[in-house]
Amino acid sequence: MSEVYNELSKQMKEVKLLSNSQAMLFWDIRTYMPSEGIEQRGQQLSILGRIIHEKGTDPKIGTYISQCLKPDSSLDEIQKRNVELWKREYDRETKIPSDLVVRYTKQSTITEHKWEEAKHKHNFELIKPDFEKMLELVKERAHALDPEKPMYDALLDEYEPKITAADINKFFIPLKEGVIKLIKKYQSSVADNPPDASILRKKIPVEQQKQVSKWIMNFLGMPANRSRVDQAEHPFTTGLAKDVRITTHYLDEEPMAAIYSTLHEGGHALYELNTPEKHWWTAVGETISMGIHESQSRFCENIVGKNPTFLKYFYPNVIQKFMPAFNSINVDTFTRSINAITPSKIRIYADEVTYNLHVILRFEIEQDLIAGKVSVAELPNIWNEKMEKYLGVKIENDTEGVLQDTHWYGGLIGYFPTYVLGNIYNSQMLATMKKTIPDWENQLATGKFENIRNWLITNVQSMGSLYDPIDLIKKISNEPPNTQYFLDYLNEKYSQIYDL
Amino acid sequence: MSEVYNELSKQMKEVKLLSNSQAMLFWDIRTYMPSEGIEQRGQQLSILGRIIHEKGTDPKIGTYISQCLKPDSSLDEIQKRNVELWKREYDRETKIPSDLVVRYTKQSTITEHKWEEAKHKHNFELIKPDFEKMLELVKERAHALDPEKPMYDALLDEYEPKITAADINKFFIPLKEGVIKLIKKYQSSVADNPPDASILRKKIPVEQQKQVSKWIMNFLGMPANRSRVDQAEHPFTTGLAKDVRITTHYLDEEPMAAIYSTLHEGGHALYELNTPEKHWWTAVGETISMGIHESQSRFCENIVGKNPTFLKYFYPNVIQKFMPAFNSINVDTFTRSINAITPSKIRIYADEVTYNLHVILRFEIEQDLIAGKVSVAELPNIWNEKMEKYLGVKIENDTEGVLQDTHWYGGLIGYFPTYVLGNIYNSQMLATMKKTIPDWENQLATGKFENIRNWLITNVQSMGSLYDPIDLIKKISNEPPNTQYFLDYLNEKYSQIYDL
Repeated sequence: MSEVYNELSKQMKEVKLLSNSQAMLFWDIRTYMPSEGIEQRGQQLSILGRIIHEKGTDPKIGTYISQCLKPDSSLDEIQKRNVELWKREYDRETKIPSDLVVRYTKQSTITEHKWEEAKHKHNFELIKPDFEKMLELVKERAHALDPEKPMYDALLDEYEPKITAADINKFFIPLKEGVIKLIKKYQSSVADNPPDASILRKKIPVEQQKQVSKWIMNFLGMPANRSRVDQAEHPFTTGLAKDVRITTHYLDEEPMAAIYSTLHEGGHALYELNTPEKHWWTAVGETISMGIHESQSRFCENIVGKNPTFLKYFYPNVIQKFMPAFNSINVDTFTRSINAITPSKIRIYADEVTYNLHVILRFEIEQDLIAGKVSVAELPNIWNEKMEKYLGVKIENDTEGVLQDTHWYGGLIGYFPTYVLGNIYNSQMLATMKKTIPDWENQLATGKFENIRNWLITNVQSMGSLYDPIDLIKKISNEPPNTQYFLDYLNEKYSQIYDL
Repeated sequence: MSEVYNELSKQMKEVKLLSNSQAMLFWDIRTYMPSEGIEQRGQQLSILGRIIHEKGTDPKIGTYISQCLKPDSSLDEIQKRNVELWKREYDRETKIPSDLVVRYTKQSTITEHKWEEAKHKHNFELIKPDFEKMLELVKERAHALDPEKPMYDALLDEYEPKITAADINKFFIPLKEGVIKLIKKYQSSVADNPPDASILRKKIPVEQQKQVSKWIMNFLGMPANRSRVDQAEHPFTTGLAKDVRITTHYLDEEPMAAIYSTLHEGGHALYELNTPEKHWWTAVGETISMGIHESQSRFCENIVGKNPTFLKYFYPNVIQKFMPAFNSINVDTFTRSINAITPSKIRIYADEVTYNLHVILRFEIEQDLIAGKVSVAELPNIWNEKMEKYLGVKIENDTEGVLQDTHWYGGLIGYFPTYVLGNIYNSQMLATMKKTIPDWENQLATGKFENIRNWLITNVQSMGSLYDPIDLIKKISNEPPNTQYFLDYLNEKYSQIYDL
């Protein structure tokens, strides 16, 4: 049996190594590739994609898995978990007929391309026919993945295994209510003296911004011989094991963009770097889900990076030190501004509180889209209505509305909720961590992240894919995910900063 | 037939695209990869290497080629040439038994690794046993490539197709004689006032060095959207078609290193960028040989970069402008110093004249090694004797002698001569170019490279692999390669600078 298992591991390791090669070529596109190189690179990626698909769907893998799954197989618990996870991957790859893969990839490229044009021209009509086709393909895919499951759940499962729309609703319904309540309380409390996030927009030389990013990498404990930071238009993290790369963007008049994207991507990178080394290149050695990934990035970005006590250290010793233009703003004003709740139109610029509503809105709409309760034609109106209802903002054109994110148009439906799952998970992690590190904020007040980092490594990151997300949260906190932790965290923090 | 040909083209294009993906991952190792990433990257490259080998030796390719080679195939001349070139590639890949590929790659890695240690410890003995094994494998490989040919010719053919040791001897024997004569003439002429190359060693900030490199890229006409410059310990050029990348090194106290490696690698890049676009991804669309490649790099580095008339423009307007530390040296002194003939121990630091002797020495020795006329044990002595005889320098230890270059230890035998073939080719190109652009030096004197560049594109670079090297030289100059052109070029240039 161990021979079969070893063969299986070897095959899966090859798939993983090839996928990572492909990821490196993607990284290169977004960082250093000369612009005209895109056509040949696209061809390279498509050949590699085909090879990876062929290797990942090799019938031998299916045979090995069946043999390993026999009740008399003498596999240990870790090995069994690996086989289970590989089976999921193999099933996913093999269940989708290859003609669907081809049609899907092609349409997705076309629709994303059209989306750029539609967004540029503020014209949703331009994308309608292609998005309708894309949506049909997404449904076809969902059905192929699991004809027994509701389609939306089949899609969700790819990004957040073993979680259903019903689970998410259970989390999001109280969240929506709690967040709207908090916003109202905040708005009435700060009405006389509203904090102004726009004062953080200052022209800061890129060199100064880089100094801060460098400090953050060091603060987070990113090993220089296993990681790096580069620039990309849209920050992302890629790589794994001993080569994990983040990107950030240094915007001329938005220094907060580099600071908080470095913290965010740094959190993602820590997760990849600290998966269990002895299980690397097997499934258990990987990160488990997008939601857990987001929990780590948002822990660093929001729970740490926007914490008032941490800012007492970080602001004077790092931001003001490297960016002297901030000397005109004191730490209290900065803390109030960086945490200001400002309902806005664009998700990626949203604050820690209203962000959740942007995602909940998308979660509600995409379920209806998949269920056929909302047509593509109705999309802009529904979007705009919900934006006004949840956030009180009036969308003037679709570029600042339903066209703002690329996800749906590329076929990513069921992905958005993971952003907010990350918030729910990480506040529950924080509540548990406080029991072991009650003085965590005092530690941050001296610029010390080490114990917090080690707690995250031990309890979350080094678990790799041993547990599915809900089981992992239960293991960490002895309780399934519970939105109340996140609401408590927000209420406590906002009461402290703004005397709610 | 066209269907068979199209299938064949498609397969070969895939191999090419995958090889280029692999090249990009190599580029990343030498430029940006975090150091600890090397192990996983090595595994990735070895998987990719295996896939490329499998695809390149697919028996279908053999079948397609045979069909295309039938006399009644209705292929045009270009298609026939492609089939011929693909056949060479396919034969090379398939003739070497896969167990030899494995043993060769393994031993080559071990020997190169041992070489580093031996070089570090100044101890040739350390590498002897492994180099003996490597040498046997190189011979085995040569025999597998073509049992009919002398082994050295079989090896040569990989780097410089259709050229034999006898051809090279015909070029190198008069070259050696001519160069030694020129050195003697030079030495007696400058005896009273010897130029001093060491005055060019100045501490120059990297930022200033980068400005000069940037200027050179622009001067050469490297398109920003299809090329880039990065830093690497050992400069190299990689990529092809619309994504060609050079690297240079900015040494703290050797500003000439960045300047002349940018010119050299820039020359390589121009060749890759200007292969015929309509034949890209077929064999005809590729560069033809290492020797022709070197002719282009050395054209930019030496014929242009060290030309006294060009220096009248380049030195004050670029070097002195961006590196004010050079204001203490005037253009005549600079020209005399950069062209100074200084017999030295290390090939890569050699001047334009003595460089040839370094290579001829290696060519002579490696032929004897392969023929068994010289044993590995005798190598250091023979090396040192020849160095004293040809260059008058006394080698004190093997690190500055036979251990200085990695080529042999990694299995690269038959490669060195291509460096000097580049000199022979490009001076013959120059002689032809002068007929069309008689005022080429005056153009350089105003910083203008455009017409020279276009001549190189039209006559050399855009020929891709239509012609084998000797045929290409014949086509360009109506004459086979003839060493006299290079000797004339050197004699004329040195007479002009040093009043020989």
